[in-house]
Amino acid sequence: MSTLIRNAEIIPMTERDLHLRGDILIENGRIAAIGTINGDADEVIDGSRMIALPSFVNAHTHSPMVLMRNYKDTCEELMSWLSEIFPIEDKLQDEDIYWGSKLAIAEMIQSGCTTFADMYFQSWNTARAVRETGARAVLGLTLFGDGEETKRRFREFVPRIEEAMDGSDMIRLDAAPHAIYTCTADTYRLAVEWTEEHGHFLSTHLSETMTEVNDSLKNNGMRPAEYLDSLGVFSVPCYLAHCVHLSDSEAEMLAGHGRISIVHNPASNMKLASGIAPVRKYRELGLNVSLGTDGASSNNNLSMMKEINLAAMLSIVSNMTPSAARPYDILSMATINGARALGLDSRIGTIEEGKDADIVLINTDDVNMTPLNDPLSAVVFAADRKNIDTVFCKGKKLLEHGELKTIDKDEAIANTYRCWDSILRR
Amino acid sequence: MSTLIRNAEIIPMTERDLHLRGDILIENGRIAAIGTINGDADEVIDGSRMIALPSFVNAHTHSPMVLMRNYKDTCEELMSWLSEIFPIEDKLQDEDIYWGSKLAIAEMIQSGCTTFADMYFQSWNTARAVRETGARAVLGLTLFGDGEETKRRFREFVPRIEEAMDGSDMIRLDAAPHAIYTCTADTYRLAVEWTEEHGHFLSTHLSETMTEVNDSLKNNGMRPAEYLDSLGVFSVPCYLAHCVHLSDSEAEMLAGHGRISIVHNPASNMKLASGIAPVRKYRELGLNVSLGTDGASSNNNLSMMKEINLAAMLSIVSNMTPSAARPYDILSMATINGARALGLDSRIGTIEEGKDADIVLINTDDVNMTPLNDPLSAVVFAADRKNIDTVFCKGKKLLEHGELKTIDKDEAIANTYRCWDSILRR
Repeated sequence: MSTLIRNAEIIPMTERDLHLRGDILIENGRIAAIGTINGDADEVIDGSRMIALPSFVNAHTHSPMVLMRNYKDTCEELMSWLSEIFPIEDKLQDEDIYWGSKLAIAEMIQSGCTTFADMYFQSWNTARAVRETGARAVLGLTLFGDGEETKRRFREFVPRIEEAMDGSDMIRLDAAPHAIYTCTADTYRLAVEWTEEHGHFLSTHLSETMTEVNDSLKNNGMRPAEYLDSLGVFSVPCYLAHCVHLSDSEAEMLAGHGRISIVHNPASNMKLASGIAPVRKYRELGLNVSLGTDGASSNNNLSMMKEINLAAMLSIVSNMTPSAARPYDILSMATINGARALGLDSRIGTIEEGKDADIVLINTDDVNMTPLNDPLSAVVFAADRKNIDTVFCKGKKLLEHGELKTIDKDEAIANTYRCWDSILRR
Repeated sequence: MSTLIRNAEIIPMTERDLHLRGDILIENGRIAAIGTINGDADEVIDGSRMIALPSFVNAHTHSPMVLMRNYKDTCEELMSWLSEIFPIEDKLQDEDIYWGSKLAIAEMIQSGCTTFADMYFQSWNTARAVRETGARAVLGLTLFGDGEETKRRFREFVPRIEEAMDGSDMIRLDAAPHAIYTCTADTYRLAVEWTEEHGHFLSTHLSETMTEVNDSLKNNGMRPAEYLDSLGVFSVPCYLAHCVHLSDSEAEMLAGHGRISIVHNPASNMKLASGIAPVRKYRELGLNVSLGTDGASSNNNLSMMKEINLAAMLSIVSNMTPSAARPYDILSMATINGARALGLDSRIGTIEEGKDADIVLINTDDVNMTPLNDPLSAVVFAADRKNIDTVFCKGKKLLEHGELKTIDKDEAIANTYRCWDSILRR
């Protein structure tokens, strides 16, 4: 099976500000050639009114939390909101997680995203949804509590999740201790051990609120990142969600470790009043900064298009200079930096020969993209989910002219409502 | 002609947080009834998967500036960006303004907006576009320079614009001195006189950047709003765009005048690094705060859906509390407060019997709106332009299932490109 995208405005994300008119040939799920391509293919797509970008990487989300979208979202800050959410989470069953994951994947695909890093419970259901939809995911085995609980989770949950993954090379399982305020030191140490053993990555929430920082200073005599460093967490590759309140020395320490990535979550940080992460500073220190939507219940959507725009806007106004967020830098966060954060940059994140064909085609034939002028500015500042036309993951079409190809939208919506109504009655 | 919207989730914006399931009957362009309506109509619309809101009021834009979308938008701040834009503006001709206006109106309709306050040149072309598209507008007669130039503009331009308005009750002409750094004191005084004489409103940019504030302190010995107050500007009803850097005493002074509205432009203020307007403080002082997209060239789109979301997010994070931006408050800014700012609140801005039927139907049957839970949160935080289904202006359908009804989209896009290419060659 081969697909030829003809005459698109390609933003390959291989070089600063580069964009070029050209063709992309997809063969057997991979990018076989880029440039002026003679000859034919099984399918030819007219790209003349399309921007082609590497499809987006959502480097931090909690996909099944779409169930709690727009639910009790008027709390004053993170901790009081979590106290509304946790009791609901205790009631979730396999089917809820499955349909929540499927709806979330549909929403991410609609916004041009094909790879996501998830942190949630009962992830065997998410693994099933990922396989069925043709998307790509890194699932976090979510850890809460002490070492005994963590050992139980590794023992009981890993086999179930691996069984659901069924050897797919589109899913990986990472260790995901939730946060320093929900996990003991033992849990973090066990997560690091497991990560080393399996050659994977570790994901955790870090320094999301000032409450977390102050509590850590009180309980551990150290700031959150210093505390995790003291536990040896950063000896394995990590992607750290939020990082709103890192001190300069914490950020420098993380940069020094080399394989640490930050996941910036602007919508969630704004909506929950957590604060503004100084991502420009992180980038200048050489930290790899990626982008994530966080869960839909604190956003309240999973649109990577919206997240890209917010990341740019927030960085500009908080630094009081447009140079703080060049379109290329923001698009890097949403593509190659996300791939790098998850250790997938040899396979995805740019449009290059030999990489998997994870590509989004953004329609420029709409009023909000006219005139196009600078295509990078257009994507970051003018475009939205309505412009997402076609999405490929490993060469497979997940979206075509805005319509989902591997997910029955009506079925996903109806089942999500059915599950949610049932949860509220439990 | 009558239209019955059946069983919609109505957010009438008449009372804090109110939403109710019900029908809306539209007769002869007006809202004839709301509630449970027996009987039929010429057209019946199934609203069961729709939220009905008063359509949005974009209280500050420069519609033809869509021409300069994504153009040289990497400048360091407002003044350097304007120095790129002004030479282009000198080249604009009637046809450019007409097609730019039409494209802009199309984009606003797509985002649920039917009324806009415009500030631009050669507005007879915009008036023509407004009449042809069935939208509603308050056009600002844009003033630059000294008193002689202003007198010339009143003398030469007002008759041309009024001729193009052709007695339509859907368009009004206001005086719009551009800003204190482009207009003399005489120009402001003449604008006030003209406004008093015609019983209209006055619109101007105010306190957009710290540069403007510092220059005013240097040149006038006063801050910008104090300076305009000294000229008697606030003796007429005004809607003031941006107001990013008002001092507390300036804000109190404006609140004291009674008929002064602020137009908040979060996207433009963020993108141009102008700053964050303290809109919560303004609201608490009793000022009427409305919402505007500003021109597309500093945004880079005219989506009121995006502006609503940004206004909420920015207010929450800048005040570090979600209580700074309740969904109802933000939706008020985009509807009834906008209507009030433009003096149109007796006709539009709420869904009430007797008001004109300016209504937007937002589709909740999409993955990003599932589950709906709180419909006000859903609109502010989850929805985007893709969810805008149907838009009425004075009972006339301007959008249906996302398709423009009164504008040929392809024609508008093609002509905008033709004009823009020609401008760049002049």
